[in-house]
Amino acid sequence: MADPFWPGDERAGSLFSGPALLDAMCRVEAAWLAALVDMRVAGPEARDDLAGLAGPSDVARVATGAEAGGNPVIPLLGLLRERLRARNPAAADWLHKGLTSQDVLDSALMRCAADLLERLRGELSDQISGLVELTERHRGTPMAGRTLTQHAVPITFGLKAAQWLTGVLDAAEDLAALTLPAQFGGAAGTLAGAAELARLAGLPDPPARGNELATRAAAMLGLRAGPPWHTARAPVTRLGDALVRATDAWGRIAADVLTLSRPEVGELAEGTGGGSSTMPHKANPVLSVLVRRAALAAPPEAARLHLAAADARDERPDGAWHLEWSALATLGRHTATAAGQTTELLRGLRVFPDRMAATARSSADALFAERRSLAPAATGDYLGAADLIIDAVLDRAHRLKVQP
Amino acid sequence: MADPFWPGDERAGSLFSGPALLDAMCRVEAAWLAALVDMRVAGPEARDDLAGLAGPSDVARVATGAEAGGNPVIPLLGLLRERLRARNPAAADWLHKGLTSQDVLDSALMRCAADLLERLRGELSDQISGLVELTERHRGTPMAGRTLTQHAVPITFGLKAAQWLTGVLDAAEDLAALTLPAQFGGAAGTLAGAAELARLAGLPDPPARGNELATRAAAMLGLRAGPPWHTARAPVTRLGDALVRATDAWGRIAADVLTLSRPEVGELAEGTGGGSSTMPHKANPVLSVLVRRAALAAPPEAARLHLAAADARDERPDGAWHLEWSALATLGRHTATAAGQTTELLRGLRVFPDRMAATARSSADALFAERRSLAPAATGDYLGAADLIIDAVLDRAHRLKVQP
Amino acid sequence: MADPFWPGDERAGSLFSGPALLDAMCRVEAAWLAALVDMRVAGPEARDDLAGLAGPSDVARVATGAEAGGNPVIPLLGLLRERLRARNPAAADWLHKGLTSQDVLDSALMRCAADLLERLRGELSDQISGLVELTERHRGTPMAGRTLTQHAVPITFGLKAAQWLTGVLDAAEDLAALTLPAQFGGAAGTLAGAAELARLAGLPDPPARGNELATRAAAMLGLRAGPPWHTARAPVTRLGDALVRATDAWGRIAADVLTLSRPEVGELAEGTGGGSSTMPHKANPVLSVLVRRAALAAPPEAARLHLAAADARDERPDGAWHLEWSALATLGRHTATAAGQTTELLRGLRVFPDRMAATARSSADALFAERRSLAPAATGDYLGAADLIIDAVLDRAHRLKVQP
Amino acid sequence: MADPFWPGDERAGSLFSGPALLDAMCRVEAAWLAALVDMRVAGPEARDDLAGLAGPSDVARVATGAEAGGNPVIPLLGLLRERLRARNPAAADWLHKGLTSQDVLDSALMRCAADLLERLRGELSDQISGLVELTERHRGTPMAGRTLTQHAVPITFGLKAAQWLTGVLDAAEDLAALTLPAQFGGAAGTLAGAAELARLAGLPDPPARGNELATRAAAMLGLRAGPPWHTARAPVTRLGDALVRATDAWGRIAADVLTLSRPEVGELAEGTGGGSSTMPHKANPVLSVLVRRAALAAPPEAARLHLAAADARDERPDGAWHLEWSALATLGRHTATAAGQTTELLRGLRVFPDRMAATARSSADALFAERRSLAPAATGDYLGAADLIIDAVLDRAHRLKVQP
Repeated sequence: MADPFWPGDERAGSLFSGPALLDAMCRVEAAWLAALVDMRVAGPEARDDLAGLAGPSDVARVATGAEAGGNPVIPLLGLLRERLRARNPAAADWLHKGLTSQDVLDSALMRCAADLLERLRGELSDQISGLVELTERHRGTPMAGRTLTQHAVPITFGLKAAQWLTGVLDAAEDLAALTLPAQFGGAAGTLAGAAELARLAGLPDPPARGNELATRAAAMLGLRAGPPWHTARAPVTRLGDALVRATDAWGRIAADVLTLSRPEVGELAEGTGGGSSTMPHKANPVLSVLVRRAALAAPPEAARLHLAAADARDERPDGAWHLEWSALATLGRHTATAAGQTTELLRGLRVFPDRMAATARSSADALFAERRSLAPAATGDYLGAADLIIDAVLDRAHRLKVQP
Repeated sequence: MADPFWPGDERAGSLFSGPALLDAMCRVEAAWLAALVDMRVAGPEARDDLAGLAGPSDVARVATGAEAGGNPVIPLLGLLRERLRARNPAAADWLHKGLTSQDVLDSALMRCAADLLERLRGELSDQISGLVELTERHRGTPMAGRTLTQHAVPITFGLKAAQWLTGVLDAAEDLAALTLPAQFGGAAGTLAGAAELARLAGLPDPPARGNELATRAAAMLGLRAGPPWHTARAPVTRLGDALVRATDAWGRIAADVLTLSRPEVGELAEGTGGGSSTMPHKANPVLSVLVRRAALAAPPEAARLHLAAADARDERPDGAWHLEWSALATLGRHTATAAGQTTELLRGLRVFPDRMAATARSSADALFAERRSLAPAATGDYLGAADLIIDAVLDRAHRLKVQP
Repeated sequence: MADPFWPGDERAGSLFSGPALLDAMCRVEAAWLAALVDMRVAGPEARDDLAGLAGPSDVARVATGAEAGGNPVIPLLGLLRERLRARNPAAADWLHKGLTSQDVLDSALMRCAADLLERLRGELSDQISGLVELTERHRGTPMAGRTLTQHAVPITFGLKAAQWLTGVLDAAEDLAALTLPAQFGGAAGTLAGAAELARLAGLPDPPARGNELATRAAAMLGLRAGPPWHTARAPVTRLGDALVRATDAWGRIAADVLTLSRPEVGELAEGTGGGSSTMPHKANPVLSVLVRRAALAAPPEAARLHLAAADARDERPDGAWHLEWSALATLGRHTATAAGQTTELLRGLRVFPDRMAATARSSADALFAERRSLAPAATGDYLGAADLIIDAVLDRAHRLKVQP
Repeated sequence: MADPFWPGDERAGSLFSGPALLDAMCRVEAAWLAALVDMRVAGPEARDDLAGLAGPSDVARVATGAEAGGNPVIPLLGLLRERLRARNPAAADWLHKGLTSQDVLDSALMRCAADLLERLRGELSDQISGLVELTERHRGTPMAGRTLTQHAVPITFGLKAAQWLTGVLDAAEDLAALTLPAQFGGAAGTLAGAAELARLAGLPDPPARGNELATRAAAMLGLRAGPPWHTARAPVTRLGDALVRATDAWGRIAADVLTLSRPEVGELAEGTGGGSSTMPHKANPVLSVLVRRAALAAPPEAARLHLAAADARDERPDGAWHLEWSALATLGRHTATAAGQTTELLRGLRVFPDRMAATARSSADALFAERRSLAPAATGDYLGAADLIIDAVLDRAHRLKVQP
């Protein structure tokens, strides 16, 4: 996985890739099949974990077959049934029974999202550690505050880092609050098929059994169980919004690094810069550039998911649902990539306190204008309150860290 | 307040209007002034609630003066100081001391948002009640389920209403979870000015006093206190995302009403339809049309807020911050308008169970194809599991209702 | 017209305002009525120019009445008929006969757009003149070229200005290429009503007469005549795209001014900067900030128009059409405002060649790295080719200027 | 090339794929090298067409190497030089001399765009033929006109097809008007490097020679020559806007097919519908669903290109440029896919005039309400003017066709 149109994409590994989607769809079918057997709706001979039936080399066939029915589940089922027929005909018969394409695809996408969130958790944790350290180390490093591009009043670099950290904590909090639901509802979200199967198996209270099938399969997938949400797409938009909250936070850091690593400012620099095809001397702030790119690109992707939610129609929409898959995959991969780039950016970030101090001194007249307007003769510590702000942010970081 | 380019806008009343913004900015200045006096940073002679100093008739002057400094706070301050000078010179001297424009504008926008949220809470509560009733009443009303525009399997209209309700509950939950923070940080978010004022007043531990000023002023405004968030804009993007979650939910309802009130379908109709300029017979589903419009318009507005967050730069951005105000106001007014239109739409919605049943019957062959494929000879209740789904959604609605 | 949420909005004057829309709708009705009389479909007693029948004070009533029918035409007609009844009952009877709301609103919006384009033409012409002068004056002013924020190779400020000019020329070209069509099609875009009226009047070849009514009314409005485009919305999306092409060009200029007027760079400054509410020393690049804001805000507005075009459905869409009005008005006003701000920004722009030269000198090692890699011992003029580039751009500006 | 997240993607073939980009970048380097040799800047021994040096199997390496320098040109150059060294050391030395990464990437993307436009030309031509035929065949097929989802006045299906055709003609016109420029400017768009090379080669008037190198290389690539446009991105936004104009037109057709192929309406159907994973009876309008998906997805992609244009900064932007590549590739592939799907949709479209007539009859009371309000006793042809509209549209199609 690497994309010449999106440098750094390989950082996302297999997250939200074609093979990962295929694998997740297989896991959903396997979980449902296991639930059918476990609950004795299907006989024990139908037990099959579907392991080894389909893999990365099948992605092209499944993808190419997707147009005919409008989604990749249908060709995948054809392929699974064909291969399963030989090794386990009962499983082939029971495969997908009671499900609909949307169940499989929605649950698979949520499974892909779960993998993404795990990755992001790690990156955010690293970033928070790095930012806590940066904030503490530079708590007393004076620099010029800048507003509307002009020098304003003095700040410390620690305070700036604390603002960066605030953004990252906001994102981490929102990502941690997400719960990803499985989707199991059958052809129109009624669970009627599942209940019918339970009835045919002679189980008592078939509707409750239908419901239980969904609950069990969700648990096997590590997803939240609950009523179908075929056309109530908040699980998708919440995910998208939280991902963009993360790219916002990283974009804001990148914007500062890009500004402050301009040669005329020279207060920050990336650990190692990027090269140029013609200018050997250049050390471009490449990670910041690529993170900024992601941050500018992400908001419309989440907006697309909202549009899909708003245009949900009937019991399965006529295009809006289909819009989500690519938006989620793109946003997912870009977020994972930007996460890694930001972690690396922070880890390697070089800070030049002397340059910061020199600018602050040379601009002192301007910087202390606010103070003079308040107290012409004032001296002494000007940034005591910033310490309290920093403490509050660090305290929040600490509390977030100690949570599971 | 009414806008010929956005029919229904008058429903938003003064929410996020020019006068409301002006009033909120005055309230922020007044709260800060009160905090200064209460904490003895300023003397008691500076006490002034600023009441009556500026009102709707000043909006044009403030708006027109906003370009010179880039925001409306500066002209408002000029106006307030000029008028205050006569009645309370001490207050005129102390006004805005320790604050920056962004403090006033951000806090004022959050105050406007608080008013909006209160309005939405009422609308959502009405909608939830209406949808609960609709769900219960039509729990057993059979209709054709439709996927990708075609008949799929039978559902009940109660189940569809439960899906509508799910979307509204998701939105209500997210809106209820928002906490709106005040912004008090001074020129570059350091609270240095506030602390300096405390020092000049001879108070002990001036930084802590500076912080306390911010806490008190926030409380007076009914906003959450906390560290400045000048360039960490999650409070703004969370608000925007939650508002769009609401328009998503309403848009999804409107899409169904528009489809099902087509004359060929005839299963739903708006209470009273809209007229036509040429065709006296028409009863257009106008509320649904206008709600759908809002739902299609909203996502990019929230995306704009994310872009602003991602492009935050320095201690106050060079355009990104300025982008937020209008996006918030537009999204706020449109959401309030759509909320009221949706409430009215639901209240007046006419349901035609006979037509639903007739279509379900005439399409029974198709609708029961799933069942036949599972169990050729099956009879009996097919929608028992849907009842459980409905129960789960109603239960959630009930739990949300009983919360404060 | 001034908006505290969008500093500078008063620059747009009445363009795309409520009163302007109302006036334009009246003009459309008047043009149609005149065409009916001119072609003897209506009798001469029905002649009325509708002058003075409705004005700015009616906007609120029309706006508030718009929700009931879903658009502002219906309440406006009520008002016009009521007032016309007294002074000219025949005109009251003939008013709007053969038209539909969409005819009136679409044509009125195109009329508003025509006024906007005229304004923009003037602004762009001023900008082109200013940029031509800037380019010529600084053709030989050396400065550091910058890529990915770092010094790259030397350029001249004239070359940079020529790139700014290129953007403005691109926009001017696209705006000049627009032709704004009237919309006259009747209830479903068939012109059947118009033809019927011609038949009732005993005119030969009624369909051709119906068509001719549309052609005449279009001519009276200064709009292009042609077949109805009720659901083929390229006239709207082309307009939106061209407007955004303009804000793109201005945003790109603003981004450079913001960067180069940072105190550490100091190569450019706005004529007079904006003030601060707390820091008397500040001279903020406020015009650039506000132009940048507009440039960041505009793209989703045009995207909204595309979404409306893509979601056109039936013979009049169920929400997509309604989405356009506000998007057009907002984009129109913002573009007009940004146009004026950019013109003023360019007119007042201060250039500091000494500072440019100093930076270029101090960074010469870096700047000439490319040259050394090509020709270690080279000396002499390095920017001769830039002159040719400049000439080509100036030549294009000249050619565009001499066109009507 | 096939993408399980975007069913139908394989229709785009290699357009805007990784291999296509790599190939285009090689073509750009080869064209420049040929120009250097042709103009005797480089010696004849440096002639090499780079054929066979890099291919699809190198995409992963180039993509993975792209992050370090921020773009894929740098790793590609490494690879080309390494392989060229053995077969033609002089060519290896001269490769890329005078160019910068942006030259190669921008020109390569324009080359990819040229291939896309050629494909689209074919598809649009097929669509226009199909729509002309549909319009002519159903010129007299009566059906109900629908506005805001309700029956309005009668139209003919031919008139509806003429409106579809209008949208396609608008798009075809805009795509035909595009001219795709090459980008050749060197490190900061000055062509200084090219001129320097000409000077070193002892050629007269080196700046003019530098310019001529660019002109020749552009011609070899089949792209328009002209001044550099490093930071004046109209060529990119015009392309994006025109592509979205196409998806708008297709989306509008799909929206109608989706509505009119609902079982309750039954006036249209896709040639063969898509299957379902559980419901054997279903014939879903899959092509329309997938086209609608593309039409909903496209607008923000073009908006992204505008944002990139507006955020252009310095002589190469710090993220905005990097944002374009993926947006162009995605939009390009999606447009190609939707083009093919629309062509197929139109080719297979089944029209049911009986059903149209039946609905029109049963709704005649409503449909003729306009007429009765104009002329209570009228009879006779009501749609004569529609014929004229159709003629005008067909005439336009004919004129567009006969152009080269």
